[in-house]
Amino acid sequence: MDIRHAESSDHARVAAVIDDWWGGRQMRDMLPRLFFTHFRDTSFVAEDGDGGLAGFLCGFLSQTYPGQAYVHFVGVAPEQRRAGLARDLYERFFTAARAAGRTSVHCVTSPRNTGSLAFHQRIGFEIEAEVEGYDGAGESRVLLARTL
Amino acid sequence: MDIRHAESSDHARVAAVIDDWWGGRQMRDMLPRLFFTHFRDTSFVAEDGDGGLAGFLCGFLSQTYPGQAYVHFVGVAPEQRRAGLARDLYERFFTAARAAGRTSVHCVTSPRNTGSLAFHQRIGFEIEAEVEGYDGAGESRVLLARTL
Repeated sequence: MDIRHAESSDHARVAAVIDDWWGGRQMRDMLPRLFFTHFRDTSFVAEDGDGGLAGFLCGFLSQTYPGQAYVHFVGVAPEQRRAGLARDLYERFFTAARAAGRTSVHCVTSPRNTGSLAFHQRIGFEIEAEVEGYDGAGESRVLLARTL
Repeated sequence: MDIRHAESSDHARVAAVIDDWWGGRQMRDMLPRLFFTHFRDTSFVAEDGDGGLAGFLCGFLSQTYPGQAYVHFVGVAPEQRRAGLARDLYERFFTAARAAGRTSVHCVTSPRNTGSLAFHQRIGFEIEAEVEGYDGAGESRVLLARTL
């Protein structure tokens, strides 16, 4: 498995599979190409030995909060799951965020996504709050944070 | 009209109207709350004399390209259009981007959105390219840039 910084052109490969990777949920609009173009140094793509897309992480350094970094999306191909790849992608992000002087990482997830909640707690995130309508009416979110 | 920096709580107000402001297009998923939370210093909200939402702009400083700033979304309430508010929002963004040492501003728009293309050219943007499938299959985009 090769993990490298994201490139703008990776967006098309991710956009083509993201709805499938999320079990048919409409996710593509939530991940415009700008994350692959303008946040390359805190975004990563994993490829298997054949160059196939195995996973990705899109994150950035908060402009508002100079101590914070934020992960917007992390995804792993269904056939690559349960092998630690999401954790490896996060470790790369933690390293990049620390190198940029950040002291905490934040993300949000849906309260229905119990797999995501359990995963984040395994890698050191703690639940800060659950906020009804956080991303608009009907879109509640659990806010998670991890110290670096 | 009062233009101020965006706050995280502004997201709910924008999310409630954004699809209507875009003539019924499904836009809300493209503007998650993170833009209002983590890019406050380059994002702005305009309120009319009664505190009603008149417009907003969400932009950020590129991490990948230290000379660039990027505008992700700008919107004006239908009843507030043709009074120069989008231009005023952009001027606030240009000032913030210059203060952060940026020398160019970039954005993308749909080639079908001729009103947006004409507006951006009026305020000094030039068309860099039109890229088929830029934001995924079927989602062509015109790339625009303006020197600061």
